[in-house]
Amino acid sequence: MVEPKIVKGFRDFLPQQEELRQRLMRLLADVYRQRGYMPIDTPVLEYAETLLGKSGGETEKQIFRFADAGGRDVALRFDLTVPFARYLAMHKEAVGLPFKRFHIGKAWRGEKPQKGRYREFVQCDFDIAGADSAAADLEILLTAASAFAALGVQGYTIRLNHRGLLDSFLTRLGKADKKAEALRAIDRLAKVGPQAVEAELREHLGQDASRQTMQFVQVEESLASALEKMRCLAGDTPALARLQTVFEALQQLGLTDHFIFDPSIARGLDYYTGLVFETFLNDLPAIGSVCSGGRYDNLAGLYSQDSISGAGGSIGLDRLLAALEELGALPETAGNPQFLIFSTPHTAQAHKALQKLHQAGFCAELFPQDKKMEAQYKYAARKGIGYGIFVEEDGSFSIKNLANKETRRGIGLAQLAAAARETA
Amino acid sequence: MVEPKIVKGFRDFLPQQEELRQRLMRLLADVYRQRGYMPIDTPVLEYAETLLGKSGGETEKQIFRFADAGGRDVALRFDLTVPFARYLAMHKEAVGLPFKRFHIGKAWRGEKPQKGRYREFVQCDFDIAGADSAAADLEILLTAASAFAALGVQGYTIRLNHRGLLDSFLTRLGKADKKAEALRAIDRLAKVGPQAVEAELREHLGQDASRQTMQFVQVEESLASALEKMRCLAGDTPALARLQTVFEALQQLGLTDHFIFDPSIARGLDYYTGLVFETFLNDLPAIGSVCSGGRYDNLAGLYSQDSISGAGGSIGLDRLLAALEELGALPETAGNPQFLIFSTPHTAQAHKALQKLHQAGFCAELFPQDKKMEAQYKYAARKGIGYGIFVEEDGSFSIKNLANKETRRGIGLAQLAAAARETA
Repeated sequence: MVEPKIVKGFRDFLPQQEELRQRLMRLLADVYRQRGYMPIDTPVLEYAETLLGKSGGETEKQIFRFADAGGRDVALRFDLTVPFARYLAMHKEAVGLPFKRFHIGKAWRGEKPQKGRYREFVQCDFDIAGADSAAADLEILLTAASAFAALGVQGYTIRLNHRGLLDSFLTRLGKADKKAEALRAIDRLAKVGPQAVEAELREHLGQDASRQTMQFVQVEESLASALEKMRCLAGDTPALARLQTVFEALQQLGLTDHFIFDPSIARGLDYYTGLVFETFLNDLPAIGSVCSGGRYDNLAGLYSQDSISGAGGSIGLDRLLAALEELGALPETAGNPQFLIFSTPHTAQAHKALQKLHQAGFCAELFPQDKKMEAQYKYAARKGIGYGIFVEEDGSFSIKNLANKETRRGIGLAQLAAAARETA
Repeated sequence: MVEPKIVKGFRDFLPQQEELRQRLMRLLADVYRQRGYMPIDTPVLEYAETLLGKSGGETEKQIFRFADAGGRDVALRFDLTVPFARYLAMHKEAVGLPFKRFHIGKAWRGEKPQKGRYREFVQCDFDIAGADSAAADLEILLTAASAFAALGVQGYTIRLNHRGLLDSFLTRLGKADKKAEALRAIDRLAKVGPQAVEAELREHLGQDASRQTMQFVQVEESLASALEKMRCLAGDTPALARLQTVFEALQQLGLTDHFIFDPSIARGLDYYTGLVFETFLNDLPAIGSVCSGGRYDNLAGLYSQDSISGAGGSIGLDRLLAALEELGALPETAGNPQFLIFSTPHTAQAHKALQKLHQAGFCAELFPQDKKMEAQYKYAARKGIGYGIFVEEDGSFSIKNLANKETRRGIGLAQLAAAARETA
């Protein structure tokens, strides 16, 4: 016998959990679709070189990489963005630009398992490729906002920044060569606090510049004063103009409650070059960003001479779900009334009844075995089934409300759907 | 630069293809859910030992197997049934028996790529665990039939058999020890024809028994004569009684057009022990079975002392889709009328319009960049968008039918949804 177990960092999902995940994914797909994003799919396995580029770097340690039976150096994708870049390089003629796509799928990273982090996780990505404009930036942010609205999440804040601002600021300071170090330090602000970040910055930029950088990344009380500060510290750049346009539109749409200009949002050393954002739940910021994204100037640059600008975002389904569970804010599952036909020797009659109920849009099933009534009631209770149906000797049906035990008898097959509608 | 390419036997899906796949998966999930199956999910990676058992065998050559970073011997699942067996052994208390589950997900096999066969494919499985009855067998068959009805597939035939019949027959012949060889030969009937099968059987069973076996597997014209033949050749066994009960119910439900008793259906050397079936498209039988399944007596036996009887079926999404494409019988995609708001400096007004249209249930998007009208018309045509919306200088809207160029002007924001409904 083999011991039944699952690989470390991986998970099974019980039916109630999975029903909820499916419901969330369907809601997100509907939001994306309604806004004009189209679905794509890519293989879960890619050439390791496709995923890592020539170098590899940090990511290399985290991926599931192996040689397939043909000796190919392959790996499980660690996100959906890199495969999308490869996809664009191969199919941009076929899909045409600009191209709005969504992709909901699993990705894998061999990182240390911890709360809300697993080695297998579902990403829900949306991107616009081939359009560099405030309208496209705005669309990405509004897609995130629509997604949270569809999921019934009210208390969230999208923290917004533009990578170009820090670039200009560091250039003005004469520290453009320290950008990577500065980004890395700033990126840890929420995690380690301002003192640790300033200490780290001091090492790389010196006393004065680090003090000014801390001032630079400080969130201001009003948008006006924040923009004014940027104008002083980073100059009147196209990056600032873009950010201002986006914020003005958000204001006109009455959405500023959900958006904050936060110059400390850096998104690590990622490929982002323009707008960047992270999303936090107001009542559970510690779980981290539940929707992140931004603009990257040269999305498919690793694979193609063409420079394609893109912007997009990604909702981490598993982390969001863990957060909503902790907050007791899970969306309700579909309240479709359910019927259980209790086991009967009149199998064909029971299946005719099922057919009528399904055609009327109800969920209904026949208990699949001749068992004691008690076991069948238990089954109904476990699945949250509200109504029992009994096939009587004469072929007629009774419908029983399993909560209050009220029973309606003598229903003919032709009347069953109507009776179910009246009862449920 | 890295050459953009995908691993052999794997595929990308373009938006139109993927939209169709998603639509099919959603239709199937709805059918399964309506019949009382609940969704589950399991990791794509399992311990190799979980998938292969102690021995391995044929399957071993076909799987993607490797050592993860922790040195664990893992592999990508090659179907959804084996992980379900492992899942049941671990979670049967939590889910309770009987348990109806569905699972739509990818599986991987390193087999030689050919038409309709890929190394990455989507399976759409439905199973009832913990119930051994004619009612459960029938439910599996009716689920397959409902699935095809929901997909709009009319011309299909489900070929049905019971593994117990061949067992009794071979025992009567005194050839019970040659069961594996006989099964393997019979399983190739559709592929190699009766003469080759008889020749192979002769080797293992001898002249007389092979001739009788060929008679045994012959499909009879009427169900009555088929059952009569079975009674003579295999005896009046519980297997025959079960099959007869199932066929009687199918008759009463008026479904016999879609079901045939075919004693040659063997389902290879799989774990099946009772009912077995395969489904063929009447106009394209050569593509092979698009939905197969049956009953297995000891589903979780590899991992647990408990004997759990199960029955289920699996629809191979990719093969079915390839077949429907070849037959020109693809279901229509959702005809939700779509709107493109042409690019405008009045971004906020455009987004207010989008909000109104989305609330009214329409698909609508804003062209994400300031580009020539021609490029925007092309974009609309490529995506099959039927209506253009223009934001006029005064903030009002025009709706243009992109097919016949008819335009309705001077629509206010408050009237937009109603106007869209009237126009589209």
